[in-house]
Amino acid sequence: MNAPEKLQQLLTLTREPFPASTKVHAQGSRADLRVPMREIALTNGERVTVYDTSGPYTDPTVAIDVRQGLAPVRAGWIADRADTETYSGRQRVALDDGGKHEERDGGRIEALRAEAAGLQRTPRRAKAGANVSQMHYARQGIVTPEMEYIAIRENGKREWMREYLQDAEREARLKGNAMGARIPDLITPEFVRDEVARGRAVIPANINHPEVEPMIIGRNFLVKINANIGNSAVTSSIEEEVEKLVWSIRWGGDTVMDLSTGKNIHTTRDWILRNSPVPIGTVPIYQALEKVGGIAEDLTWEIFRDTLIEQAEQGVDYFTIHAGVRLPFVPMTTKRRTGIVSRGGSILAKWMITHHKENFLYTHFEEICEIMKAYDVTFSLGDGLRPGSGADANDEAQFAELRTLGELTQIAWKHDVQTMIEGPGHVPMHMIQANMDEQLKHCKEAPFYTLGPLTIDIAPGYDHIASAIGAAMIGWMGTAMLCYVTPKEHLGLPDRDDVKQGIIAYKIAAHAADVAKGHPGQRARDDAMSKARFEFRWRDQFALGLDPQTAEAYHDETLPKDSSKEAHFCSMCGPKFCSMKITQDVRDYAEQGMAQKSAEFKAQGGEFYIPIQPAGQA
Amino acid sequence: MNAPEKLQQLLTLTREPFPASTKVHAQGSRADLRVPMREIALTNGERVTVYDTSGPYTDPTVAIDVRQGLAPVRAGWIADRADTETYSGRQRVALDDGGKHEERDGGRIEALRAEAAGLQRTPRRAKAGANVSQMHYARQGIVTPEMEYIAIRENGKREWMREYLQDAEREARLKGNAMGARIPDLITPEFVRDEVARGRAVIPANINHPEVEPMIIGRNFLVKINANIGNSAVTSSIEEEVEKLVWSIRWGGDTVMDLSTGKNIHTTRDWILRNSPVPIGTVPIYQALEKVGGIAEDLTWEIFRDTLIEQAEQGVDYFTIHAGVRLPFVPMTTKRRTGIVSRGGSILAKWMITHHKENFLYTHFEEICEIMKAYDVTFSLGDGLRPGSGADANDEAQFAELRTLGELTQIAWKHDVQTMIEGPGHVPMHMIQANMDEQLKHCKEAPFYTLGPLTIDIAPGYDHIASAIGAAMIGWMGTAMLCYVTPKEHLGLPDRDDVKQGIIAYKIAAHAADVAKGHPGQRARDDAMSKARFEFRWRDQFALGLDPQTAEAYHDETLPKDSSKEAHFCSMCGPKFCSMKITQDVRDYAEQGMAQKSAEFKAQGGEFYIPIQPAGQA
Repeated sequence: MNAPEKLQQLLTLTREPFPASTKVHAQGSRADLRVPMREIALTNGERVTVYDTSGPYTDPTVAIDVRQGLAPVRAGWIADRADTETYSGRQRVALDDGGKHEERDGGRIEALRAEAAGLQRTPRRAKAGANVSQMHYARQGIVTPEMEYIAIRENGKREWMREYLQDAEREARLKGNAMGARIPDLITPEFVRDEVARGRAVIPANINHPEVEPMIIGRNFLVKINANIGNSAVTSSIEEEVEKLVWSIRWGGDTVMDLSTGKNIHTTRDWILRNSPVPIGTVPIYQALEKVGGIAEDLTWEIFRDTLIEQAEQGVDYFTIHAGVRLPFVPMTTKRRTGIVSRGGSILAKWMITHHKENFLYTHFEEICEIMKAYDVTFSLGDGLRPGSGADANDEAQFAELRTLGELTQIAWKHDVQTMIEGPGHVPMHMIQANMDEQLKHCKEAPFYTLGPLTIDIAPGYDHIASAIGAAMIGWMGTAMLCYVTPKEHLGLPDRDDVKQGIIAYKIAAHAADVAKGHPGQRARDDAMSKARFEFRWRDQFALGLDPQTAEAYHDETLPKDSSKEAHFCSMCGPKFCSMKITQDVRDYAEQGMAQKSAEFKAQGGEFYIPIQPAGQA
Repeated sequence: MNAPEKLQQLLTLTREPFPASTKVHAQGSRADLRVPMREIALTNGERVTVYDTSGPYTDPTVAIDVRQGLAPVRAGWIADRADTETYSGRQRVALDDGGKHEERDGGRIEALRAEAAGLQRTPRRAKAGANVSQMHYARQGIVTPEMEYIAIRENGKREWMREYLQDAEREARLKGNAMGARIPDLITPEFVRDEVARGRAVIPANINHPEVEPMIIGRNFLVKINANIGNSAVTSSIEEEVEKLVWSIRWGGDTVMDLSTGKNIHTTRDWILRNSPVPIGTVPIYQALEKVGGIAEDLTWEIFRDTLIEQAEQGVDYFTIHAGVRLPFVPMTTKRRTGIVSRGGSILAKWMITHHKENFLYTHFEEICEIMKAYDVTFSLGDGLRPGSGADANDEAQFAELRTLGELTQIAWKHDVQTMIEGPGHVPMHMIQANMDEQLKHCKEAPFYTLGPLTIDIAPGYDHIASAIGAAMIGWMGTAMLCYVTPKEHLGLPDRDDVKQGIIAYKIAAHAADVAKGHPGQRARDDAMSKARFEFRWRDQFALGLDPQTAEAYHDETLPKDSSKEAHFCSMCGPKFCSMKITQDVRDYAEQGMAQKSAEFKAQGGEFYIPIQPAGQA
């Protein structure tokens, strides 16, 4: 691709549906509850339906204008609950966009802001004394439309799966090992409610993000993945910023974290949120740090608190809060090979050692809970002391913080605030299980959300693979969401292709975990693929894969002709010899053998006992 | 890269050493026993030595002419044993190169053959009644130079590792879980001998392949990987064929399988063997099938036997022999989702059902053993009934064959013939351990050699990742060698970059397994990388990685300047804020804190008990 083409691609939203795919909706109990799925039409007439994170972007019937944002699918549900109110909101200040940097942009951002004035919404918050978290509703016994939506979404369409799952021998043999998860055959709205009430699952869905298509994160649900994006150094268009999101969810990002720093972060976050059908997470301390000119020790609780409210009003669905990085743990990191590698963790360490005071996120934790429940923002309790190398895995600092996150989880739950726990990082394979065990023990099954983990340190340029190994394993063991790692990890900023590579590697890890856990029906897509392979339905193989275009392009490299898409052979053995074809001969043989034996039996007068043939003759 | 450049690359051997790397040799007990390693010179003066599969190609001091072949490093050892003799060898016939195809080549191959006349060697075989297998020597209590070579090679240079492994807390915390393997602190030649004698490890080293740099495959040694290559449709030069090998071992292939089919396979195999420092494996039935024009049912024991001798004389180090595909197992495959997917397995199934006779490899197994021990060819007992989809994993057919391979292992061992066992294939994560358990049980710890396994089926284009997950896990559990899978698996023939991608993914899997098993010193390279990361030694990070050029190229994409190679920040956070830098502040703080406490202690008159500060003030 040449440079102008590449630029054009960046400036255009990717809206092409996947090959052979159509957006379909499963209808819920109310007219405005329609759960999107991707239906793949196979050449043999089968219809395979798969989980779809891509939102309306892959639906050609929906007109999208990034200056207006997506339709607020949850607006009616939120309004019906009648426990929120609109209000004037916090006054926006220049510093929200990192004032010091703004001048560089030559006024371009002002023009873009004016262009996107349609994205400004009046914020909403809980009425005085109300708690609008999904956990609070769940504990009141209320099944919200979000919960019903999720139940439908998690089940998928079981009809087509059944054909693949009816062989009793195969089902018994392939039975998953849930590793302690308790996954029901069918997800009911009541099950979703119960899991959220217990804190075993979270539904990140800020009341100011009505555009979100609800999804759930918990060990008894499908394993999810997160992709990270950041703002551009020089924004050329709103589409450019939104396209990063669209690209990430196209390939399967279940949530997206906006890790923007520097200038225009408030404004670009508006653009992303209003155009995002997936939950958006942030690390608010990044923006707070910008507001104090990048000087960690100048941070204050007031500035941080103001930033939380700013972002909660915009609609951020989950906040990474590094409240477990406590002062006494900081010296535990000095013997480490790689010290503190979390950006948030090191900001707070710097603040604490400068002031010789306890982490203000820890000391103000209950006040943070008050904000979270007024907007239903979910905690993602950050692991600021995660290991940055295999050498530091599972050390004193890491586990001291994890235990603190467990204590904080109890406090958050006391406030009915949804909570998940972030995990490492860099962990050799044999030390992964201990991470899961400790997390389950101390955090009482609050969803675990890990970065990888990377199993080795010597693969720069390939850390998406080094970490997909750890991610698949910990996903199987019970981690609910896997934060992706791209090939650029440790080296540079991921470009468009790196993002895709990272997401695909993590879709593989997540699906491998789902299959191993035995999530009902999850194996069916693999089985449909295998059937398509055996029947040489090449186009169906492409369509059923995680990346149809790449699969087709690879096939074309060896056998470019259209006719070979229907050919009953492939490039590995060529047309003369094909093992799959021989299998058909074997089947015919087995059947003939039966028929012949049957004829022999009849010819012999139907006696059940016949003389044994000498060995070697049969 | 443009087309002429690409062609030039294919026609030139890649001989450039890795960045900052030099070939060094560790001297053994005899002058001609020099074990090559790669020494990486770090910018801080450290010297890191790593296992080196690349042979003399990365040694600029060695002149290489592919028309003459590599120096026969083992020639003296073989001669000294005085148990072999040269002989005229089998008469070469046109059919060896797939006679029917030859005319197409317009005489080009004849010219190339003449050009490479220097590669023709007189074959060698065991003297009448002798057994020249490493297993036979081992069982006689003989420590061969090959065994000593391997001991040195497996240990690597422990001196530099020690610095990284001296922290007692860290070593206790990171202690590997060997999963039943018994890995000694130091590999001695006697240990190698004992493992080979027990059959728990193999040294693939045909006496007609004196060019091989000995290596070992066994659960108590480093996990190895295999890469596959095949001949070109139209051979343009000898370099072109040899370069595939050179490219594969450059990135870390421990052995290479030549899976050529079609024309000129005998001749290209000569070129590869004479130029290969790694063991070469083949699937002889592929060539035998060519000799009968691709008609499986026309195969005979005599044609197959002749092919074994042909290849043994050339120097092939291990043969995949599908002797476990027995007639009674064939009908077990009819209920499968994907039937028989092994090429060898389906050839034999076709033969058996056509003739309604038992597999001739099974019935002639002891005769095959006689050939193996006359040249020291190692068995790789093929899994012709391996599952071709997750749906078929661990089924009756697969495990029936595995039990048969266990029986055949006993027969091979009776003849002192080295034996490893091939394994799947497609296996969901939760079913991998059963594969290892069954193999260990039935094959009595004969080395397991698996293809992947692929953990899911829906990732065409990314099956190197889907399978690296399974490979890392089964490697940890005890698999001794991992056969790579490329991104083109299921889609087409791998090109140069696909081969590299597959190898790197498998080096990651193998190293992750070694670290998890706790192979002594294997973690040190990761630790050196982590230290380089923490100290912002960018060039050292590149040099220590599995693919230095890619790592550097990725770094350059964001920070292209040479000066940023020494910069104490990276593109992730930029120069203003750096978590690694903050860690240094933390260390200073911890030390100052100590100093301050110490000063306070002295100021207070050195009392050991001082009043406890109220909480929140410390």
